[in-house]
Order: sequence, then C-alpha cells, then structure tokens
Amino acid sequence: MIADIRDAVGDTMGITLRVSLDETIGELGFSNAELRDFIEMNRNLPDLWDLAHGTWEDCSGPSRFKEEAAQELLVRGIRELSDRPMVGVGRFTSPDVMVRMIKSGTLDFIGCARPSIADPFLPKKVEEGRIEDIRECIGCNICITGDMTMSISRCTQNPTFMEEWRKGWHPERMNAKGDSDTVLVVGSGPAGLEAAWALCRRGYDVAIAEARTEIGGRVARESRLPGLSAWGRVKDYREYQLRQRPNVEIYLDSRLTADEVMAFGFQNIAIATGATWRRDGVARQHVVPMTIAEGAAVYTPDDLMDGNIPGGNVVIFDDDHYYMGGVLAELLVQKGAKVTLITPSAYVSDWTRNTLEQGTIHARLDALGVNIVLNRGVTEIAVDHVVSNCVYTGRTCQYPADAVVMVASRSGNDQLYRDLILRQDEWTDAGIRSVKVFGDAEAAGPIAWATYAGHRYARELDGEPRGDALPFRREITELAAEHTPSPELCLHD
Amino acid sequence: MIADIRDAVGDTMGITLRVSLDETIGELGFSNAELRDFIEMNRNLPDLWDLAHGTWEDCSGPSRFKEEAAQELLVRGIRELSDRPMVGVGRFTSPDVMVRMIKSGTLDFIGCARPSIADPFLPKKVEEGRIEDIRECIGCNICITGDMTMSISRCTQNPTFMEEWRKGWHPERMNAKGDSDTVLVVGSGPAGLEAAWALCRRGYDVAIAEARTEIGGRVARESRLPGLSAWGRVKDYREYQLRQRPNVEIYLDSRLTADEVMAFGFQNIAIATGATWRRDGVARQHVVPMTIAEGAAVYTPDDLMDGNIPGGNVVIFDDDHYYMGGVLAELLVQKGAKVTLITPSAYVSDWTRNTLEQGTIHARLDALGVNIVLNRGVTEIAVDHVVSNCVYTGRTCQYPADAVVMVASRSGNDQLYRDLILRQDEWTDAGIRSVKVFGDAEAAGPIAWATYAGHRYARELDGEPRGDALPFRREITELAAEHTPSPELCLHD
Ligand code: SF4
Ligand code: SF4
Repeated sequence: MIADIRDAVGDTMGITLRVSLDETIGELGFSNAELRDFIEMNRNLPDLWDLAHGTWEDCSGPSRFKEEAAQELLVRGIRELSDRPMVGVGRFTSPDVMVRMIKSGTLDFIGCARPSIADPFLPKKVEEGRIEDIRECIGCNICITGDMTMSISRCTQNPTFMEEWRKGWHPERMNAKGDSDTVLVVGSGPAGLEAAWALCRRGYDVAIAEARTEIGGRVARESRLPGLSAWGRVKDYREYQLRQRPNVEIYLDSRLTADEVMAFGFQNIAIATGATWRRDGVARQHVVPMTIAEGAAVYTPDDLMDGNIPGGNVVIFDDDHYYMGGVLAELLVQKGAKVTLITPSAYVSDWTRNTLEQGTIHARLDALGVNIVLNRGVTEIAVDHVVSNCVYTGRTCQYPADAVVMVASRSGNDQLYRDLILRQDEWTDAGIRSVKVFGDAEAAGPIAWATYAGHRYARELDGEPRGDALPFRREITELAAEHTPSPELCLHD
Repeated sequence: MIADIRDAVGDTMGITLRVSLDETIGELGFSNAELRDFIEMNRNLPDLWDLAHGTWEDCSGPSRFKEEAAQELLVRGIRELSDRPMVGVGRFTSPDVMVRMIKSGTLDFIGCARPSIADPFLPKKVEEGRIEDIRECIGCNICITGDMTMSISRCTQNPTFMEEWRKGWHPERMNAKGDSDTVLVVGSGPAGLEAAWALCRRGYDVAIAEARTEIGGRVARESRLPGLSAWGRVKDYREYQLRQRPNVEIYLDSRLTADEVMAFGFQNIAIATGATWRRDGVARQHVVPMTIAEGAAVYTPDDLMDGNIPGGNVVIFDDDHYYMGGVLAELLVQKGAKVTLITPSAYVSDWTRNTLEQGTIHARLDALGVNIVLNRGVTEIAVDHVVSNCVYTGRTCQYPADAVVMVASRSGNDQLYRDLILRQDEWTDAGIRSVKVFGDAEAAGPIAWATYAGHRYARELDGEPRGDALPFRREITELAAEHTPSPELCLHD
C-alpha cells in the first residue's frame, strides 16, 4: 500500500507511517518484538517512521502514573533498524529529556502534543535559550476531558488554550493596561497567581496577599500528595516569573480582613481565596448535611493535607468522584491505615475516565490492598462504623470505621468578598473601583478552571462593560443544501 | 413570579406552569401530597397546569417497566383542585387510554412525545377514525439514545424520524415508483417488513419469503421475552397494513436457496435475513473464539428463544451490554434456574443507561435473586464452571456453571446474499437488476436500525446512482464574528 502511495505521489511529498509500539489486544495484535521485525523488514519504506504506543490510555498517560519518556524502553534500538528518521512521543515535557533522546540517538524528532498545549511557544523558547520561561505541562490530562465530555477544553497550565480565536487571547501577549493602576490579589493559589502574572504583564502594580506561610494555595498542598508532584509546576512557573518582575509584591502569612483591605488603598480587589472541603457530607448523595454521630472521627482532605492523618480502619466516602478519593487512599495506606473506599459511583474515581487513568487507579488501589466498594453510598456515620446503602436497592450494611475521610464537595472561601460587598457604599472613599471574586472561591472546580478564571479576570480588568453581546466569537451556522433530495412526492393513499 | 409574568404579558398569551407530581430527592423536594396542597393554594394562577413526574427516568420509563398511563395514580383527583385545564403525560400510546383519561375527567389534554415521534399523524388519524393506521409507540426509548450519545436519533417504529428535512422523507408519503416493477424481500423481520410496506406504497409488486412459520423475525421472537411484549407492535402494525394491500404476497416456511431466487424472475432481490447470536464468545472481551471445553453446555439467546432453556446453576456471560442479558436472566429465574450474570462492564445492561432503564433493571434482577457480577469477564468455560477475570487486575476466580448462556455479538445471516453475489454474471439472464442486503444481515444492531435500513432500501430503489454527493442535507457552518474581541495587543516583553 505504501509502495502504491509512493507511485501515486512520486517525490512531491514525504510519506510517514505511524506504527504502534505494542498493541496486543488479548489474543491478537502486534507485540513490540513483532513490530521491530516489521520495521526491519520494511526498513526504508516510509520517509519517516512515527512511533506511538497502543491505545490513547497507553500513549497519553498522566504524570501520576507515567514517567517522562515513558516509551523509552519500547523505542530503544528501533532507530538502528532503518535509515529513515524516527519521531516518537511519551510525555516529553522538559527540554533536558528531549535533548537526551536526540543526543543518545534514540529518536530524531520529538513529538509532544500536551507540552505544546501547555506552551505553544516551547520550540521558540528552546531556540532562544529561554528554558526557564517554558510553561511545562503538568501531565494532568485536563486538556483531554473536553474531548471526552464534548465540551470546550481547558489546559491547567495555559489558560489561553481554546481561546486564541474565540476571545483573541494570544498565549504570549496581553492586552494593554486600562485606566486604573493597582490591584490587590487576595490568595496565591492557581487563580490568584495567574491573575497576578497576567496583570503585571499588562502593566499593573500588583500585590499578592497569601494567608498561609507558603505560596501556591491548593496546588502547593496537593502537589505533596502521592503521584501529584508535577502539579507543583503550576506554582513554580508563575512564582519564578513573578519574582522577575519589579511591579509585583508577594506577602505571605497575611490573612486580611475587610477593614484591612479597605485601608490599603488599592483600586482593584481580586479575591481568589480558594475553597474548603466540606465536613458535613453535602455533595451528590446528600443535598443537606448527613447524619453524623457526636464523637465520630470525621476528617476532610484539608485535614489530611494539614498532616492530621487517621489510622486504624479508615473509610473514605468518595462522593466527589475525581482524583482526591483515590489519592488519599494511597496516602492512608502509606501511613499504615486499613482503607475501605466507598463510592456511590460504578467506578472508583469515576471522572478520571476523562483523564485516561481510571483503570490504572483501580488496579493501583487494589494492589495496595484498598477495599474498593462500588455502587454504595454512606447514609450515616456512627462512632465505630458507617451505614452504607446500595444505590440500586437501598439495602444497607455496615463497615467498621475508626475514622471517616469525607471526600464530598467544596465550599468557596468567600467571606472576605461578602464582607466587602456589604460595604459597597464605602468603596469610593477607600479608593476602590472594583471588587471581584473568581476561581474556587466563586465556584470550586478543577485547577484548570481556576487558572482560566484568574487569566480572564486579568484580561477583562478595566474593560468595556460587556452588555448583551457574547464575550467570545463563535461559528454561526447557516442552513444550506448541498444536495436536495428528490422533491418527487406522492400521497401514500 | 407568575403574577409578575401576568402583569408583563397581560392577556396577550396564556401562561402554563409545569410542576412535578413527585420529586422527593433524598431529604428534600415536593411529595405528591405537598404538590396537591400547592395546586390547591394556587388554584387558578396559571392558565394551564402541566403535570409531569420527577426525573426523565421517572417520567419517560420504557414499556418494559412502565405501564401505559403510569402516572394515573399520581394525577387522579388533581383536576378538581383548580378550574384551569390540565395536561399530563405518562406513556399514553393507545387512543383508548387517551380517551379514557379525558372521559373520566382525569385530564383535559393528553401530552405524548414518544407516541408523536412514532407517528406524527396520530391526532389526524384519531380525528379521521383511522385508529388501525396508527403506528403505536413500543416504548423502547431508542429515540432517547441519540440525545444520550450525542448522535442522530432513530425511532424503532418510525424510520423517517430525524430524516424529514435531512433526506426529505415525509412520514406518510413515499416517493414515486421507479423503472422496475417487482421486488422479492427475503426475510420478514423488522427490516424486511418495513421495506415491503414502504415498497408497496411506492407501487411495486412485492413478495415476502419468510424461512420460519411466523412472520416478524427477531421482533416476533423477542416480544415473547419478559417485559418486551409491546415490541410485537413493530410486526403487528406492518402485518396489518400489508394485508390490506393487493400488491403484496407473504410466503411463510419458505427458506430460499440462490437457485430458487435465480429462478423466480423478480427484478430486485432484497435480502433482510437477520442475524444469529454467536456461540463462540466473540464480542468485546474476546476478539477470537474463546476457550470452551468439549461437553460444556453453552446456550445462545436464540436457543432460549427456541425454547431450549437450561436449569441448575446458569451463568449468563453478558458481553453485549444492552437488554438481552438482563431479559434472559429474568426468563431463566422464571423457569427455575439459579442465575449468575457476569459482565465486564461496570453496569448490568450498561447500554440501557441510554434508554433510561439501567437502574430499574439492576434492582429488578437483584429482587429476583440474580447474582450480579460486575467488572468481570469470562476467560474460559469448563464443563462445570467458568473462569472469570477481574477487568482491572486480571485476577481470576471460578463460578460453578451447569450451563452458560453466551450473550456475545451477532453474525449476519448473509449466506444467500454471498451466494447471489458470486453468480452476478447470471443476473441479467435471470432478469435480476439488483441484489441488496440490509438490516441485521448486513450489520447487526438495535431494531430501529433495521426498520431504518429497510425504509432506506425502499426509498432508494431505482434511484439515481449516488455519486460523490452526501445522500442527505446538512447545515453548513460559516465563520462569522458577532463580537470582535479587542485587537489591542502588546508584547509581554
Ligand atoms: S491540561 Fe494538563 S496535561 Fe494537558 S497540556 Fe495542560 S498541563 Fe499538560
Ligand atoms: S423509539 Fe421506541 S419509545 Fe421512542 S417513539 Fe419510537 S417506538 Fe416509541
């Protein structure tokens, strides 16, 4: 077939052949050894060999489970089987590893989709030697969730992703500064950091006030959980960039009251104070606080991230369904607890099916000895057990529990925002032109929605009031007939 | 709010208020008694009360689980609480029940979406007294699956659904007859019957040859399974209509060979010979035939529909994931077997989540005592047990099995078609102008795709060769900016 294509196109174009490095499906498919035989047999057939691995899950695993250059062992040695150049993929995110793959003669070209989403100017920055300016992909696979849910995609690291045309957001260029000059950003989580970084590029003088003694908010805290260290890059990249700027100040250990904010004299107040995991069980199963006995030991993910970690028989009630329940199960096992994870969903960490890691999470937890209980909720927490219901039949049973970790929903930390809104009539005297809340403080979600919200706040500051028009461009559908079915109709009676 | 709307619109339009007859969500929501209080309190507030029930699952259950007029008890008596007219829904499919609801004073208007999809001319046919011409909804909920899977919808009973504009298919009118005159339809399942019914309305002389001693193919057979009796309407409607036509002959007990078909002298041969359930396990888990010990008692759904029903410990291996596995579990329990249903999916009858019945199926099977085993496959069938693997970890265990019912995939019965294609050079002498295969014989699927395929065959017979143009109209998307984001850009460095 390739020879036929060569005959058809002559030397007017190159021909590339993508092959899977290992695609055994049960009893069928090519193994890696067979693939090597195939390449050797067809040595110089294509102009470029394009090497990838199996399914999308195999090829684009998240940083939680796939090392950088995860396909190296499957690829090594293949280059010698042909005189043609070879391109390969496998979560290459850092220029170091990319260079190593080329210099070691493993590959001739580096293929990387996610790192180019996280930073479309990655090759340019390598060329210019601006390595520290690369916004490195964290391998969270949020960019894939839009495809899976048929909604707009976001990228945790690059908030301009998908908005280049829709909103005219250039990944490297900001719009000009508006009328005002100063912004106080309250909170240094992903929303606050991205807002500050985008604002200072517009030319505003920015101060960041962080209540804790480290910057980064949820990103700093979650990156210390098992498997999530790469997520710290959301903070690292922005912290480094902000430190290079003369027009940004960062204040740690600075929890602010409304009085203090009113006294500071900033023209714009950006509230990005994050969210707190609920202790009362309100999420999907429970729309009002659930029954919890006095004296029952109930922990939230925030407690665990603060270092308060229970032992003994621990039940995790995961009614959140994204990564947190599964990650905390790993943490608790590491710390010696006997863990039962109960979820009303049919899948452990259900929403991670959209990030290509659900199957791996299940297998990992099983290997760690976690008792995975699917399709069951928790109706009641007693001092030494929980009562669990079958989501289909309602039948209940009990699980022993010295402690319960409640992975329910999160509430926005919006007290400061509410306090300031109540004092709107004092704003003018205080020199305040705007107070906005965004990110998890406004609506808790994945980290990508926080960086997006922070960026959007910065883009829109001092902008025109929006009016009735949509704040983005869209494709307008027109009805047109390229083929008109036969108009010949006759009555059937 | 309603009073405000009344002030705003005056008497220029009526105001209708949709309320849920029972919407208790765990600890919250209106019960039916509270709803009655609410209507009594607000008696004549809207111009029309619109009564519906809870979630989409509650309100639009399939015929397998919801009786016609399923909301009658929730609605009864409400009409007396207001002077305003009331509309209600609840799977009204037959004019008899609709009339009873009005005559008994239970409702003033009949709401029915699915029956209007199955037959858009239902009200017209009632008005004209053509009750037997109504194509009654079978309550399969296939029309909902397009919404759930974000693909085009189909209706099992009405193959023109969704194609009115795209293909110009009028639900009651066919295109004019083409050049040829006669068609032999081989097979009287949903594809063959619909093809014959559409062809005879175009004016062709049609003969139907059915191998079995009853007409209807899979629809006749499946409608005798627990809960599926309404599906027999696919056959009943078409059989009745065909019997009224002078230009259709139906031959039962007439399995045809290629020799016979060549000898008959029909101009067009329409092969709609259906499909057969595979015995070798090939479906999703197994891409080649699975390991089955000699002497193991393996049954297919066809065997059970033929009346060969195993007893004792029966394992159903459901790697099909639609309704068949769950329905056969019900049948086997009725016949006295002890049933274990094993499926690699996370849900029993997974695909029925798209037909709003998955939760009900799980609860029903559980109530019948079926042992439901999720997230496990079957790797091997021995004489007295099956070996089952966890889809996540691969770990195996055994389940005792006196017999295994294999609900895998189906193979098209296309031998006759292949035999005729091999003899293409004899067609002209035999007076044959075309031989086509369609429906399950070509590609096994839900019944709706068979009626659609039969209808399409009939519409397109003697048509123009299709060429490169798409055989349907589509919306052409044009790029247009209704709002242009600020073009003011500045470099960030
Ligand atoms: S969403 Fe996550 S995985 Fe995807 S490109 Fe961005 S940082 Fe990388
Ligand atoms: S698809 Fe089934 S339920 Fe829907 S309208 Fe048609 S026959 Fe009725």
